[in-house]
Amino acid sequence: MQAVLGIDIGGTSIKAGLFSPEGELLEERKIPTPALVNAEAFAIVTDGLTLLLAAHENTPEDVIACGLDIPGPVADDGKVGFLPNIQLDPDGLVAAISAAFPNASIAFVNDANAAALGELWAGVAHGVSSFVLIALGTGVGAGVVVNGRLVAGAFGAGGEIGHITVNPNETETCGCGRHGCLEQYASAKGIVRLYLEECEHRGVTPVHVEHATDTLSVFRALAKGDECAKIAVDQMCEYLAQAMSQVSCVVDPAMYLIGGGVAGSFATFAPELRRRFQAHALPTCKDVAIEAASLGNQAAMYGCAYEALELRKRSQAGK
Amino acid sequence: MQAVLGIDIGGTSIKAGLFSPEGELLEERKIPTPALVNAEAFAIVTDGLTLLLAAHENTPEDVIACGLDIPGPVADDGKVGFLPNIQLDPDGLVAAISAAFPNASIAFVNDANAAALGELWAGVAHGVSSFVLIALGTGVGAGVVVNGRLVAGAFGAGGEIGHITVNPNETETCGCGRHGCLEQYASAKGIVRLYLEECEHRGVTPVHVEHATDTLSVFRALAKGDECAKIAVDQMCEYLAQAMSQVSCVVDPAMYLIGGGVAGSFATFAPELRRRFQAHALPTCKDVAIEAASLGNQAAMYGCAYEALELRKRSQAGK
Repeated sequence: MQAVLGIDIGGTSIKAGLFSPEGELLEERKIPTPALVNAEAFAIVTDGLTLLLAAHENTPEDVIACGLDIPGPVADDGKVGFLPNIQLDPDGLVAAISAAFPNASIAFVNDANAAALGELWAGVAHGVSSFVLIALGTGVGAGVVVNGRLVAGAFGAGGEIGHITVNPNETETCGCGRHGCLEQYASAKGIVRLYLEECEHRGVTPVHVEHATDTLSVFRALAKGDECAKIAVDQMCEYLAQAMSQVSCVVDPAMYLIGGGVAGSFATFAPELRRRFQAHALPTCKDVAIEAASLGNQAAMYGCAYEALELRKRSQAGK
Repeated sequence: MQAVLGIDIGGTSIKAGLFSPEGELLEERKIPTPALVNAEAFAIVTDGLTLLLAAHENTPEDVIACGLDIPGPVADDGKVGFLPNIQLDPDGLVAAISAAFPNASIAFVNDANAAALGELWAGVAHGVSSFVLIALGTGVGAGVVVNGRLVAGAFGAGGEIGHITVNPNETETCGCGRHGCLEQYASAKGIVRLYLEECEHRGVTPVHVEHATDTLSVFRALAKGDECAKIAVDQMCEYLAQAMSQVSCVVDPAMYLIGGGVAGSFATFAPELRRRFQAHALPTCKDVAIEAASLGNQAAMYGCAYEALELRKRSQAGK
């Protein structure tokens, strides 16, 4: 019985999904791990996966594809770029997985890209050959799918729309070293910052925010009629709509999906976002659908499994 | 002997190229036509093509693919959008070509998109699976190629980078009805306008320009040390570099190719364009190649032929 694995790689654990080749999630399991940099750590991963497989009467030989979702750039040729947030030896991990699961095609996929592919395989974008998933979370990333395939990018920067410049007059510096990137306004941190700045500007006491990315408190305040929260969220929608209108001039997708942590409040800001997109977009592409993503935090696990499966198909087709 | 046709459709003539399936141009022929809106006009096209084929001992049955390059939007599904500059009945033309060349796959392709595919098939982008051709001419268009395939767009607006907003403070209106589009500065008309405005601003008499798109006179003035021409061309490079840095955040190509009429002066402005791109780009994608396109005004003829051939391959593969 053929099996497919999708693995979210984190700093202190992996989250592994066992799938059928048709995209049915059979089980999800969290496996605590040390940093994935040596044989000992790799063995914890492969042993954990083997146990997961055995629980479903799968042997290691049954695994035909294994996707690895990582928080960093992966180029068109599958090469992993610099990973600021986790410790990982990608070549070592691939060697260990290859040895443990000899029939598996293995693919690394960037997290936002993986989320897009997950929606394509088993979510709301199923059957949609051209769409952009925008993940609004700690940062702002996107997965761009065109002609049914991911746009990873020559240098792994495909879908890095969080770094589209939307405000050249910004004085604060973005994590990338530039100024006025979308991520500075539409990430969780950006939304909280816009809110606190507006409160300060008006001399109003803000509602209590738990931490720098606590958008939930801002959206709760908005629901209660907080004027500063409204202005902050409108501003976020304005910058996001501007960036989306630029994206449409490049790849002209049929659909935008909003995912990531902030998407929990999608229903609240969707009307404003749609209105502002209509105002900015090139008339030709005004009617694009703007919807919520559907797979939540499982999307990337689905998506990296799918990409590994597609890689297998492409190599079998000799392409 | 299999034959492939690539046809540029203009307002008063077509330019037809007869190609081998391997991409060798056997002959190019201009055929004057009335507006392509009725059976009489379609017959002039098919008769002219049949004569071209006969000159190379090809029968109408030998034509396996026929590409049609048009100045307007073509969506992912091949549907032709509004054409502001020519009169054309696309369905009628396809029916006539199908009847005359029964074995041909037929594809419409937008002109900038066709130019990109031409460079992929037989030009400097041969073997490059991800690149963006930017056509600087009367307007600014682009052809985006990703994973070896064209990004036509869900609404036919793929590669419409001429309508990326680069100057939100612009007061003049772009042809699209919006303000501050790249096309307002980096088209032939835009460059001439920037030059004349700078002369007026400084109270300097400009060199004689023949017409609103006569960039040649501006670049000649630049070569002679004209300060206003230098400022105008630098400004053009600045806006183009800004837009390219946004494009890289979406599709992250391996290469940019500059084509269109203005590309004749590429060597003059390339160093400035590269310098400004480096200054604006996300660090990850700074090292992208920025080069001149290689096929001149034949590129689109090559490219639409190629797309029709690829369409045939895809439909034979059952995709």
